[in-house]
Amino acid sequence: MSLALGEAEADAAEFSERLSTAAALTESALEELLPPANLLGPRAPVAAAMRHASLNGGKRLRACLAVESAALFGADPAQAERVAAAIECLHAYSLVHDDLPCMDDDAMRRGQPTVHVKWDEATAVLAGDALQTLAFEILAHPDTHPDGDVRAALCLGLARASGAAGMVGGQALDIAAETAPAPLTLPEIERLQTLKTGALIVFAAESGAIVGRADPSARAALRAYAEAMGLAFQIQDDVLDVEGDAAALGKAAGKDEAAGKATFVSLLGLDGARARAARLADEAEAKLAPFGARGRPLALAARFAVSRRT
Amino acid sequence: MSLALGEAEADAAEFSERLSTAAALTESALEELLPPANLLGPRAPVAAAMRHASLNGGKRLRACLAVESAALFGADPAQAERVAAAIECLHAYSLVHDDLPCMDDDAMRRGQPTVHVKWDEATAVLAGDALQTLAFEILAHPDTHPDGDVRAALCLGLARASGAAGMVGGQALDIAAETAPAPLTLPEIERLQTLKTGALIVFAAESGAIVGRADPSARAALRAYAEAMGLAFQIQDDVLDVEGDAAALGKAAGKDEAAGKATFVSLLGLDGARARAARLADEAEAKLAPFGARGRPLALAARFAVSRRT
Repeated sequence: MSLALGEAEADAAEFSERLSTAAALTESALEELLPPANLLGPRAPVAAAMRHASLNGGKRLRACLAVESAALFGADPAQAERVAAAIECLHAYSLVHDDLPCMDDDAMRRGQPTVHVKWDEATAVLAGDALQTLAFEILAHPDTHPDGDVRAALCLGLARASGAAGMVGGQALDIAAETAPAPLTLPEIERLQTLKTGALIVFAAESGAIVGRADPSARAALRAYAEAMGLAFQIQDDVLDVEGDAAALGKAAGKDEAAGKATFVSLLGLDGARARAARLADEAEAKLAPFGARGRPLALAARFAVSRRT
Repeated sequence: MSLALGEAEADAAEFSERLSTAAALTESALEELLPPANLLGPRAPVAAAMRHASLNGGKRLRACLAVESAALFGADPAQAERVAAAIECLHAYSLVHDDLPCMDDDAMRRGQPTVHVKWDEATAVLAGDALQTLAFEILAHPDTHPDGDVRAALCLGLARASGAAGMVGGQALDIAAETAPAPLTLPEIERLQTLKTGALIVFAAESGAIVGRADPSARAALRAYAEAMGLAFQIQDDVLDVEGDAAALGKAAGKDEAAGKATFVSLLGLDGARARAARLADEAEAKLAPFGARGRPLALAARFAVSRRT
């Protein structure tokens, strides 16, 4: 085993530890912020569906970006945890609605039945709606930050990442692509991913600069880092969709290919996609230069985006 | 014609004028805040659906409450218009999602085809999602108020009115009622309406106190006013559903009755429901006592809630 490989493995182990820590903090914040599990009566299904969709779920990469970017500016970890929880609520809402029969029609997510399968469509629409609302409620609450300007800036940033010019716009492009006469081109698929998944990843990385009241240049550097990193992450998703097995991914592998959808792999080839992702991860890391050694956790996140197997 | 009736007619005409003014201001604010009508490409349908759902629509009662309550504290009308527009976006989002086939399955709204009929279900889910986001984006934007604490308080208030403990909770109760073994009781239907429609009406009335940085007692008085007024409004809705004709309502009359749903009329009788609504309107008016003559527009709104024919 080469020394370089040993280093890469140590880096991966270090990031994996940081990711687990951020995930556990976010999980416990969500536990407190979500409607309680023991609710009775007609509102119980929506509450249970909100918990199903947002707890025990996913890699928590966005949460980790929020926590690590806040740490960069010495922000209060308790505040960063609430921001991370809000971002994960918004992410969970988007997945619940994207999985609906009228959208991507997915029955499984993270190895579990999706909300409309486990409950029904009405509960899925409402649980998604309420998770989006909860994200803004958390950010706007005085517990998130004593300064109202910070809370309002967080709400504004999340709204811009989420709405018609962000995630909703990306999902609209994705749906339109399914019935388009020709597969998407590379610039089109990049645009789609920038909106659909990139926008929230960028806000997650930027949120630490907002909470930590960093100067505009630091905020811009974090945005540029996350733009490259988010795209690298998405290309690796397509790579894993081709390479991966369903058990490790928690969803059907090869689904995009089978559906005849354009992906980074269909457009660039497997090796080309891997090379592009690696280059973007390097670019992302380079954007962290202003932060010196303190940028290391975010640099590890960029490497993780392209080295992960799930 | 008695003198009292002449007065009532003059009051109705005065309120009708105020409602039209608030509606026109809100309409022009929405025109600027919504995605443009001339958008091209795959995101055009969601943008068009957002406009269809929120422009040219409804009585704009919530917008009027926001504008009139802000005027009570001498707040900047331009700020109040933005708050009114945000509230109408949130209201429009809730209608688009409530009309979905998996929810109330309504094909007509305000005399127009609903979004999922005119476009499709995916567009309706996304347009609703983006309208909710836009509501928070408007409130969080510095143009709405220079003070971040005010903007964050507006976002928090809207989120509490909207989420699982507000409108979403009310819709969950409404859906559960359709398959419940017995019709709802009076306390149950009041609870349902308090969440489903009351919460946003209360926030609309309260928003002026937030924008105008009124003291907590004024804010509480506005909330109490709007709680009574919102319930009166909803009872009148049930009265009109029985009395009204479809053309005037812009939706099918007698629909609730035909569906065998409990309504204020089925529980209280037509006269009982009318009397209850009138009593609530009086109660609402009484809560405005601290504001003296300046409370008149909101008092007229309470009378309108129970005297309206559509």
